[in-house]
Amino acid sequence: MKITRLDQVEKKELVSDEVQGVTKQLPIGKADGAPNFSMRVFSVEPGGYTPYHSHPWEHENYVLAGRGVIRTESGEERQIQAGDFAMILPGEMHQFRNTSESVLKFICMVPREQE
Amino acid sequence: MKITRLDQVEKKELVSDEVQGVTKQLPIGKADGAPNFSMRVFSVEPGGYTPYHSHPWEHENYVLAGRGVIRTESGEERQIQAGDFAMILPGEMHQFRNTSESVLKFICMVPREQE
Repeated sequence: MKITRLDQVEKKELVSDEVQGVTKQLPIGKADGAPNFSMRVFSVEPGGYTPYHSHPWEHENYVLAGRGVIRTESGEERQIQAGDFAMILPGEMHQFRNTSESVLKFICMVPREQE
Repeated sequence: MKITRLDQVEKKELVSDEVQGVTKQLPIGKADGAPNFSMRVFSVEPGGYTPYHSHPWEHENYVLAGRGVIRTESGEERQIQAGDFAMILPGEMHQFRNTSESVLKFICMVPREQE
């Protein structure tokens, strides 16, 4: 059994033309023996964003802090805030954007082979 | 894409001799097209507990609110509180107990075929 908190987990900045102001943490993953899925946490600075992309696996999300939007397949921007759960299906275009003045932080679960 | 919040999700009380003061919600599951894993949320009243048991699949947890303990394989009680992540491996004995004066609420992810 592993019990941990975000302040004990290494933070890595994502560097790419498609990403701005995003760091990633991996509180639970393969290295912990997770047989099926990994729990990642992304922190997005005000004005920051993740890539607008799709992939053949899902995301299951929980918003820990802040507010922002998820840009959908159709380009619509759906509001999210602390306490929201989101399910992004395999193949769906998506992008997380922080439209607020404070950090947007969310859990993003993926199948273990993707992380 | 589905976005939801706990106040929009049906709450079911768990009824069993091994459980006390526990309700379950399923913000994301099979019915939402989740291909691999389900996001459940358990709320445990002060003094309440989940079964002390094991099963051949894992739990991946995030504590949303409150404080309590996880009773482990050896009988040890490990403290948990809002903000903690936990990984319970397949086959590990475990029990969540609310040892505080307010509700203990946590996300409990399992492979979709278990929920």
